[in-house]
Amino acid sequence: MAKKTTTTKYVYFFGGKGTEGNATMKQILGGKGANMAEMCKLGLPVPAGFTITTETCDAFYKLGKKYPKELDGQIDANIKKLEKLTGKTFGRGPNPLLVSVRSGAAVSMPGMMDTVLNLGLNDKTIQAMIDLTGNERFVWDSYRRFMQMFGDVVLGMEHHDFEHALQTVKTRRKAKLDTDLDVAGLKAVVAEYKKVYTKARKTFPQDARKQLIASMDAVFGSWNNYRAVKYRQLNDIRGLIGTAVNVQAMVFGNMGATSGTGVAFTRNPATGENKFYGEYLMDAQGEDVVAGIRTPHPIVNLNKVDGKSYRQLMKIRSQLEKHYRDIQDIEFTIERGKLYMLQTRSGKRTAAAAVKIAIDMMKEKLISEKEAVLRVDPKSLDQLLHPTFDPKAEKSAVKISEGLPASPGAATGKIVFNAHEAEIQAEMGEPVILCRIETSPEDIGGMAAARGILTSRGGMTSHAAVVARGMGKCCVAGAGDVVMNYAKKTLTAGGKTLKEGDWMSLNGSVGAIYAGKIASVEPKLSGAFSAIMKLADKYRTLGVRTNADTPHDTAVAVKFGAEGIGLTRTEHMFFEGNRIVSFRRFILVAEEVKALQAKIAAESDDKKKAALVKELKVPEKQYKQAIAELLPLQRKDFIGIFKALKGRPATIRFLDPPLHEFLPHDKAGQAEMAKAMRVSPAKIAAKVESLHEFNPMLGHRGCRLGIYYPEITAMQARAVIEAAYAVPGANAEIMIPLVGHVKELANQKQIVLDVIEQIKKEKKGKKAPKIKIGTMIEVPRGALTADEVAKEAEFFSFGTNDLTQMGCGFSRDDAGKFLKPYVAMGIYENDPFQVLDRSGIGELVRIAVQKGRKTRPDIKLGICGEHGGDPSSIEFCHMVGLNYVSCSPYRVPVARLAAAQAAITHGKTGTTKSTKNTKKKVSKKKSRK
Amino acid sequence: MAKKTTTTKYVYFFGGKGTEGNATMKQILGGKGANMAEMCKLGLPVPAGFTITTETCDAFYKLGKKYPKELDGQIDANIKKLEKLTGKTFGRGPNPLLVSVRSGAAVSMPGMMDTVLNLGLNDKTIQAMIDLTGNERFVWDSYRRFMQMFGDVVLGMEHHDFEHALQTVKTRRKAKLDTDLDVAGLKAVVAEYKKVYTKARKTFPQDARKQLIASMDAVFGSWNNYRAVKYRQLNDIRGLIGTAVNVQAMVFGNMGATSGTGVAFTRNPATGENKFYGEYLMDAQGEDVVAGIRTPHPIVNLNKVDGKSYRQLMKIRSQLEKHYRDIQDIEFTIERGKLYMLQTRSGKRTAAAAVKIAIDMMKEKLISEKEAVLRVDPKSLDQLLHPTFDPKAEKSAVKISEGLPASPGAATGKIVFNAHEAEIQAEMGEPVILCRIETSPEDIGGMAAARGILTSRGGMTSHAAVVARGMGKCCVAGAGDVVMNYAKKTLTAGGKTLKEGDWMSLNGSVGAIYAGKIASVEPKLSGAFSAIMKLADKYRTLGVRTNADTPHDTAVAVKFGAEGIGLTRTEHMFFEGNRIVSFRRFILVAEEVKALQAKIAAESDDKKKAALVKELKVPEKQYKQAIAELLPLQRKDFIGIFKALKGRPATIRFLDPPLHEFLPHDKAGQAEMAKAMRVSPAKIAAKVESLHEFNPMLGHRGCRLGIYYPEITAMQARAVIEAAYAVPGANAEIMIPLVGHVKELANQKQIVLDVIEQIKKEKKGKKAPKIKIGTMIEVPRGALTADEVAKEAEFFSFGTNDLTQMGCGFSRDDAGKFLKPYVAMGIYENDPFQVLDRSGIGELVRIAVQKGRKTRPDIKLGICGEHGGDPSSIEFCHMVGLNYVSCSPYRVPVARLAAAQAAITHGKTGTTKSTKNTKKKVSKKKSRK
Repeated sequence: MAKKTTTTKYVYFFGGKGTEGNATMKQILGGKGANMAEMCKLGLPVPAGFTITTETCDAFYKLGKKYPKELDGQIDANIKKLEKLTGKTFGRGPNPLLVSVRSGAAVSMPGMMDTVLNLGLNDKTIQAMIDLTGNERFVWDSYRRFMQMFGDVVLGMEHHDFEHALQTVKTRRKAKLDTDLDVAGLKAVVAEYKKVYTKARKTFPQDARKQLIASMDAVFGSWNNYRAVKYRQLNDIRGLIGTAVNVQAMVFGNMGATSGTGVAFTRNPATGENKFYGEYLMDAQGEDVVAGIRTPHPIVNLNKVDGKSYRQLMKIRSQLEKHYRDIQDIEFTIERGKLYMLQTRSGKRTAAAAVKIAIDMMKEKLISEKEAVLRVDPKSLDQLLHPTFDPKAEKSAVKISEGLPASPGAATGKIVFNAHEAEIQAEMGEPVILCRIETSPEDIGGMAAARGILTSRGGMTSHAAVVARGMGKCCVAGAGDVVMNYAKKTLTAGGKTLKEGDWMSLNGSVGAIYAGKIASVEPKLSGAFSAIMKLADKYRTLGVRTNADTPHDTAVAVKFGAEGIGLTRTEHMFFEGNRIVSFRRFILVAEEVKALQAKIAAESDDKKKAALVKELKVPEKQYKQAIAELLPLQRKDFIGIFKALKGRPATIRFLDPPLHEFLPHDKAGQAEMAKAMRVSPAKIAAKVESLHEFNPMLGHRGCRLGIYYPEITAMQARAVIEAAYAVPGANAEIMIPLVGHVKELANQKQIVLDVIEQIKKEKKGKKAPKIKIGTMIEVPRGALTADEVAKEAEFFSFGTNDLTQMGCGFSRDDAGKFLKPYVAMGIYENDPFQVLDRSGIGELVRIAVQKGRKTRPDIKLGICGEHGGDPSSIEFCHMVGLNYVSCSPYRVPVARLAAAQAAITHGKTGTTKSTKNTKKKVSKKKSRK
Repeated sequence: MAKKTTTTKYVYFFGGKGTEGNATMKQILGGKGANMAEMCKLGLPVPAGFTITTETCDAFYKLGKKYPKELDGQIDANIKKLEKLTGKTFGRGPNPLLVSVRSGAAVSMPGMMDTVLNLGLNDKTIQAMIDLTGNERFVWDSYRRFMQMFGDVVLGMEHHDFEHALQTVKTRRKAKLDTDLDVAGLKAVVAEYKKVYTKARKTFPQDARKQLIASMDAVFGSWNNYRAVKYRQLNDIRGLIGTAVNVQAMVFGNMGATSGTGVAFTRNPATGENKFYGEYLMDAQGEDVVAGIRTPHPIVNLNKVDGKSYRQLMKIRSQLEKHYRDIQDIEFTIERGKLYMLQTRSGKRTAAAAVKIAIDMMKEKLISEKEAVLRVDPKSLDQLLHPTFDPKAEKSAVKISEGLPASPGAATGKIVFNAHEAEIQAEMGEPVILCRIETSPEDIGGMAAARGILTSRGGMTSHAAVVARGMGKCCVAGAGDVVMNYAKKTLTAGGKTLKEGDWMSLNGSVGAIYAGKIASVEPKLSGAFSAIMKLADKYRTLGVRTNADTPHDTAVAVKFGAEGIGLTRTEHMFFEGNRIVSFRRFILVAEEVKALQAKIAAESDDKKKAALVKELKVPEKQYKQAIAELLPLQRKDFIGIFKALKGRPATIRFLDPPLHEFLPHDKAGQAEMAKAMRVSPAKIAAKVESLHEFNPMLGHRGCRLGIYYPEITAMQARAVIEAAYAVPGANAEIMIPLVGHVKELANQKQIVLDVIEQIKKEKKGKKAPKIKIGTMIEVPRGALTADEVAKEAEFFSFGTNDLTQMGCGFSRDDAGKFLKPYVAMGIYENDPFQVLDRSGIGELVRIAVQKGRKTRPDIKLGICGEHGGDPSSIEFCHMVGLNYVSCSPYRVPVARLAAAQAAITHGKTGTTKSTKNTKKKVSKKKSRK
């Protein structure tokens, strides 16, 4: 770090041996400044200059847009140093020093004022430059560019006015292109530009020092402009104190045929291939390469034009990679045959490239295994597992709206508005996109059949989002601007109306919605991908399981490396095919049966009791029969899942959602159900009405159902246990949902234990399968009394969706409206349904972990909420000492990598392989808090 | 305690100096046995006997309805002892010992087998008894009674068969009454009874020992019969291991004119007056006094009949009161002029009597001040503050159904189904009962106008219940069996249909619903009541505030001793009169305004921005105007409240409920609103639809509204602060609801602070009023992060209703369905909405108290949920160290007494008067856990 002096050091010099900064000083020099200094230290040819620190920016704002008084002297001293090193004089003299002024925060950030070139030019220095270069046109062109840039960018004048002035001169002189203007023409432009300044009552300062200060003002001022603030918000960039300003001696790539400029990556940033990759243009300035006016040449061609510079560049490429141990994104300029480096920074890369580069560099011994693991953003892996659009095709497609990126991937298909229709169309081979205001469990068949799913309501953990991620299917959810009209079978968005059968495309990775077809590319997993996954498994201590409800999903997840199932939602099975009929029959009579049973228990008069018992007979028979019909079907499901798991554990959650979710809410559906049940539609409607709840999330669901209808719990227990008997090595974990009180769990556990005993008798002699009984911790009270709950539970699985809903008091179906502004205002740093809220909901998890382990040191702890697939949340799970995370199949690789990164970053807190040291670990964690 | 021997002691003797038990041994001897022993120790004339312990009962069930082997010997030994003391022989010999067998648990409990008298009579002993007494008829009558009682009660034979046999003999002998039967007739009855036994294949044991064992079986067996179990459930009696059995030498009140029997209270149990109170009958057995066949005489008359016994009784009365230091309920028998005491126990009393007795006994120096405070059940005070039905009139009324006792008191009135109608009728002087399926804030006017409120949906903390308690108005809520038909204007319950205008009556203290009128009695507060309240205030350390929304309620509460307001729900004020029009106007445009404002902020194109700004103008004007209209109205409300409080603090909660609650949900209401707003009904319906939430409890409400609509917060702040300026000494505490994250509070606090500053400038020179800013802790996350929240909050008020809803995951509007069975099954000991769930929700409170005080040691802590009026919850609040509780006005006396009892029981944990020792207290509490 910089030496402490009595006054704050605001300016750091770079260039040759006088360099004061280095690459570690990004926080105060910004990325650009720190890397410039670092390259100087490496002895690379960098035009000298100095960096005005980010602390200056901070002070600038703290002082009400004024500079600290020490700054002036420090700038003077550095200009002098620069003059001395370059042998030039700033803004004057026969050899005038021209500089560029560039912003540069610690994190690369578009949106701020970027660059002012040729600063120092004025009516006098241009003559000296003409004398020096002998290129009058170049100098006048530079001058008029500088004047325009200064007026536009620094003084905030209208770009349009300069363009108009330029056009006036061009018209007058019959010039088509800017390059058609000769020296006289350019002089005329400069004259016109001066008029523009006058008209706007602005002054173009002739004094270079004033030009510099004004440019600094503009850079620092742009730190808090709308675009920069928005960019930081959108990209979740926090904790920066400001931008730095880099003032650097100009070098010119546009000084003729022996000059040039280029940008390059040390490897291919798209594929990761270890080949120099870039473009250059001779006789051009930096922006010309990216502006697309002239077509730049592949970097390899430079060898033919300027072999010396090319070889030097190749050497620098390798030197930088060795030094930074990462792919570099560089900018260079050749001035009359001399190479200058203007920038180096870590290169942005695709997910595929990131994986390949990490593995390659590890093999090249540039980085360690751990570093290789840390080099890949877990979230980016999603890109590798799903189809993606051809980027060019996507760019030119008609985007009509956007929604939440609920489930990644790309999908193109024909619009349908009805799940049943989606199934029919798909069966006929049509690719379809299912468009719904929102989805419900009834839609599952159609969702599975569709290529992609679009909803206009619901968040990242809405039904559509959760199910789609489970299926690995592209989904854009909660696209509030899309108006669906089921009656007319149309949707309207972005001023366009599409009808059923029209083509549309969805990009679930970013949430984009397009009209029409877009070509897509299927994913292919590389060897590097396998290698990085293998490395991840080597380092992670957290287990990774999957949330899967079908043998197919299970098999997919196992392929992706899942070590078991962390959550099977048994109710999803109730919707398949004809089962819903049985279950609905159950719902129709269930309450009547329970009401009669209660009356019988309360009746002391024997005669009345007998009458009630008689009355109970018919509904009770229907009740039992409906449940009995479900048994073999559920058993078959579990057999399939156990087989797919080959001995891996499966956590099976018993019936969870409120019963009304299983009934049709629309008239047509109710009529259909009435017909199937042979009752009146009015009876169905009355049942739906009677099951209505004000806050179903806090209503009759979870184990509250199992306690009310113990026969359902018994049936599910029987299905699991019989299936486990049928599949050798089956490893079942029965999970009771929504437990808030240990006695709820005890009640349900007893039912399961009774069934286990019964079956043991029935199967006498046969080896009993492994069955654990545990619970979800998803009600705050369950977490707070985890010491009690652990007396009955062999495992906890944190249901962080519900825990977030109840802990924060956010209904996930309704919270979008205020949660979006909350995140925008910084009240919550992230949507707590996407990234686990560590200080609030995390505290509940911590309490439950601590209390649970206190009662039962070997209790198995996992998470099965949506957070199980989010890297930041996985990091937290590792830190808090869970045994495993569980996520949708396509997120399993993400979780494996995130878990490995957490283990590398925080040490082996996890307890997958051994829970013996639990106590020590927990206390260690505690003391760390 | 009993001496420990190697074998368990199952039998305890009482009688004279051989008495082994005493009054402290209720747990093993039962109440009856322990008090019998105690009276023996006091030297009172008690027939000797022995008690078989409750542990025997426990062992009986543990051994599968068999007795421990030691028991037999111990019974034999005690029979011998009894024979020796009485000089009689059990079931044989010339002087046979007859005994009574009575059950007696630690707590008095109807439902169990009660009494078998004259045990020991058989074909042989009757002759000896005839010889001894010379009263043949008496002996035969005793014998036939014993045979019937034994068959009926002990052997479970049909009562009917004995009655039939008796009737046969009576008919044959032309006897009208039992007493018309002579010795021969009674002999014939005994013969018939023996046939009944034979027919029922039962044996009437001639052996007294066998009679005794069979009776023991019956008593112990009855411990778990349906009625006893139900009684324990209903009366929340837990932790008992069983009943004891008392075997006692018989004495006879029916041995002629010098014998008699009676029951008495040492004071008047209805009024508390210090006068001997009771009844007696000569020549009668115990049951005759209570059976009502003969009319008993007032106890004072006994003096004329048997002066000696009366004087002895008066002496015993005073001896027992001095000894037990409480009113006693006694039973006595006079056998041929000799007085025997058969029972003494603490006397049940009315609330009024409890208060008077406690104060009187304190004045008489029988008990200390603290004991006086502990003697009165706080819950019972409700009886003293509300009208009650004349008990006789209520008994004979037609009960049609029952619901929850949501708000105590009695009400009679004419049925109306509509709040508006209720107001109109009430204005015309009609007493009305408002009957609603459920109520909403719109109904407040009608609720205030009605005498009582009945709802068919909703629990103890439903809107109707909360508001009714606040108003001190009788309410029966959640009467699920009452079917209301708004269209037909009828309600049906218990097979009866009542229509609008019919009379009905409600008893809100027990939840009873009657058809017709019932006469009621207005409450009158006695001097003893003031005295006990004064004592309570002396000992309590918890403050007691009230929940009140109007100056009237505030004044009532202050009269009842409230030390301030703990909760003013400002939104209740939005409904009064025309205000709802302004607020609805606000709701209609609010979202549009916010959507446009957001678009403007996001728009970077100046022209588009300008267009949006223009578009915003009209709705923004309406928006601001609607809010401006509310300001003076709210200010006036607060001025009224501050005046009523005379310097006491008022916690004012800002807007809390979701906006849809302010809109009409029925077509008629929407049409009316549309007319008032001059918009189409469709627009209103669309707005209602757009505000619909899946789980409104977890939706857009509380501070989430204030953050979304900061202008509302600013208006409310201005209303409070301007009102505080207007009333000298006003003491305002602004409370931000539903804070889950400190930044929510910070956001709202800043708005309030800004308004404070503005007004300070406007009122320059004028003394600024006291304003504190704090928050409700009602979201679990708020409690868990209380250390953070306390950085911004000067006080916490625990909103335990919502904390329970979210912490337990119970929607209070939906939970009835499963919470009732939960309590019945013992999953929760109590409805957590009525009695604070200490281990779950209490843990959240504990965490918040601890974390809150850690950050801000002098933070003021209170509770304003419904639990603030529940004695058990108040005890918890005291133990956890809150500063105050707040409850509805009519519960203030309850809370004062409960707080005093908590302080006396647990020591001065509270911190009302001083918060200096907070830290010490908290840690003390912690170590106590």
